[in-house]
Amino acid sequence: MSETTTTAEDLRARALKLDAADPLADRRKLFALDDGVYLDGNSLGALPVHVPARVQDVLTRQWGELRIRSWGESGWWTAPERIGDRIAPLVGAAAGQIVVGDSTSVNVFKAVVAATRLAALAGGGRDEILVDATTFPTDGYIAASAARLTGHRIVPVDPADVPGALGDRTAAVLLNQVDFRTGRLHDLPGLTAAVHAAGAIAVWDLCHSAGALPVGLDEHGVDLAVGCTYKYLNGGPGSPAYLYVAERHQAVFDSPLPGWNSHADPFGMTPDYTPADGSVRGRVGTPDIVSMLTLEAALDVWDGVSVDAVRAKSLALTDFFLECVEAYVPAGRVTSVTPVAHAERGSQVALRCDEAEPVMSRLIERGVVGDLRRPDVLRFGFTPLYVGFADAERAARVLAEVLEETPAG
Amino acid sequence: MSETTTTAEDLRARALKLDAADPLADRRKLFALDDGVYLDGNSLGALPVHVPARVQDVLTRQWGELRIRSWGESGWWTAPERIGDRIAPLVGAAAGQIVVGDSTSVNVFKAVVAATRLAALAGGGRDEILVDATTFPTDGYIAASAARLTGHRIVPVDPADVPGALGDRTAAVLLNQVDFRTGRLHDLPGLTAAVHAAGAIAVWDLCHSAGALPVGLDEHGVDLAVGCTYKYLNGGPGSPAYLYVAERHQAVFDSPLPGWNSHADPFGMTPDYTPADGSVRGRVGTPDIVSMLTLEAALDVWDGVSVDAVRAKSLALTDFFLECVEAYVPAGRVTSVTPVAHAERGSQVALRCDEAEPVMSRLIERGVVGDLRRPDVLRFGFTPLYVGFADAERAARVLAEVLEETPAG
Repeated sequence: MSETTTTAEDLRARALKLDAADPLADRRKLFALDDGVYLDGNSLGALPVHVPARVQDVLTRQWGELRIRSWGESGWWTAPERIGDRIAPLVGAAAGQIVVGDSTSVNVFKAVVAATRLAALAGGGRDEILVDATTFPTDGYIAASAARLTGHRIVPVDPADVPGALGDRTAAVLLNQVDFRTGRLHDLPGLTAAVHAAGAIAVWDLCHSAGALPVGLDEHGVDLAVGCTYKYLNGGPGSPAYLYVAERHQAVFDSPLPGWNSHADPFGMTPDYTPADGSVRGRVGTPDIVSMLTLEAALDVWDGVSVDAVRAKSLALTDFFLECVEAYVPAGRVTSVTPVAHAERGSQVALRCDEAEPVMSRLIERGVVGDLRRPDVLRFGFTPLYVGFADAERAARVLAEVLEETPAG
Repeated sequence: MSETTTTAEDLRARALKLDAADPLADRRKLFALDDGVYLDGNSLGALPVHVPARVQDVLTRQWGELRIRSWGESGWWTAPERIGDRIAPLVGAAAGQIVVGDSTSVNVFKAVVAATRLAALAGGGRDEILVDATTFPTDGYIAASAARLTGHRIVPVDPADVPGALGDRTAAVLLNQVDFRTGRLHDLPGLTAAVHAAGAIAVWDLCHSAGALPVGLDEHGVDLAVGCTYKYLNGGPGSPAYLYVAERHQAVFDSPLPGWNSHADPFGMTPDYTPADGSVRGRVGTPDIVSMLTLEAALDVWDGVSVDAVRAKSLALTDFFLECVEAYVPAGRVTSVTPVAHAERGSQVALRCDEAEPVMSRLIERGVVGDLRRPDVLRFGFTPLYVGFADAERAARVLAEVLEETPAG
């Protein structure tokens, strides 16, 4: 007992020191948070406090007073590419390669179909799409639909086994940079290089990595990428997703959803389709302005933030949380399925626990909000802009208390 | 001169009487309007004044305080089908057949691909998709993409010529109920019956009719329909579109965008796709909550409104506007391309005018806001919930003044 107390005192003291030295500590006040510990920012990022006032202006002045004129005067029409350029530096992309709009699922569809078309341009006979077997389900469902419509075959493969599965038949490979369940970080540079060595197209889903770690889309030569904006980017519930098309592919990017917003002259309203140049070619229909400008406002919290600093804090936070769990939690009750190696870890910690469902309910009752991936995974997301080390220590401590009250199954 | 004055006095007096007798006149105060005449509600509906406060609650309480819990507690997860059921009575659909989400273009893609699959279920060999040759361009572009992906051929056809173009090869027909340029109302009941007689599937785009006139989707046996919500439904700029799948087709509706939100057990997160029953099967990715709940709030203006009353006022308004144009505008300067027959008229008046571009600029400067469809069409949308007869008279009068100041080309 006295040993535990000493450990707790020590961990709490270290948490305070780490928080005091945290160069991102000043960001927390930009968010609407209560006295609980919010570790679900990997599912829905917290509200930046300045956002409601900005959205009020969109509603009352831009829509309410200017109405139709806002398409030009308030910059509505160009929002998808303008906001894409705000996201670009967070994922290591130069401007002009990202458009915001539609859901992640719809963007996966655009990217996978377009990837098979890019592969076909480079030579025929490629009829396989490799898809991360542990992917977030929608990617797999949508890739299967894309394969069915384009005459390809889906090959489910564990990301680690991708290099061995690549071959002359591989048209495209769809992978998640960070696994939604385990928090495992896959090797984007190495896997992209392997995909290219096989003559195939690499499509990355950044939902669980953008805003949490450096992605380096341009540096690593990624072909196409998609991601959501409501997790680490804090864009709001269901905020629009984005599509990255590397500049070298834009002139031949062939979208399966060639809506009028991607036309070279959308207001010409001609019956023939002529695609626009640049990232705009990834647009589809009329942009969802209220959600889109909510996201645009929310992105202000990134001004002046270095993604490297975010990554450093993220690793320190998840290290520290794992250490606290190790110190506090009774042996054998939880097992981390998140890799220990930094090179393999995203910004969440996933703990396997036989009593995951009642444990998460009790954690939430006590103000520690994580989430559950059925049947037995407790997920804790660490969003470096607003989670601190004292939060991590408290979450582990409350987890231990809850486990002590919850009989082992 | 005195004759004109008499006419103007007479028309103004009639406008006042018509406004005084208008059963929908009380709706106008629900909208944020200024002292101009807003005749562009067929492009972007005006802001209902109660919406900003409702959206503030979504942002500050639902997102800001409840955060992730709002998916359940604030009804976020079920918003697409709940709001679909709010739209249903406005387009003559029983509950359970409409989901809200994605853009119109994306919904056209779902509907056209699914229509070809429905047609294939009923027997093979049908390889043509008939598309309204005067369609809003995105429908044509997207239908062409759907045709390319499913191995069909697009046959562009004037809606009036559809019956003659139908045959054993027709899989699906995509039509607009109201033409975006001319305001012509097409014969949805008759054309749907003709499509069915040929053994094909009828897909209707309701963008320019929903909220302006009775559609009668169920009554007329429409198979699939799509529409936007930012015109006569006043849902806000780029607010989410919707998809109608007739109940009899739902069990075999086969979406080309089977995202995880359409799964029978979305949180099971299984690698295999099992579609949900009912309208939910038309969902794709995570719903865009801020825009969606903006739309939901906006729909309150329809409470207690009969679509038949809206249609009666719409026809009276457009009749009266045409009469005022006839009375005021110098002969030969404009020609209506909107049909005179009520059965062929939507809720807009489109006037061909050689000087359309400068004329519309000057109209807008004087507070009469319509829009332009290049090269030579002035569009005036009459939204019966907030446009009155005095507005129609004033718009025609200002148009005449502007034309007098604008030299004929």
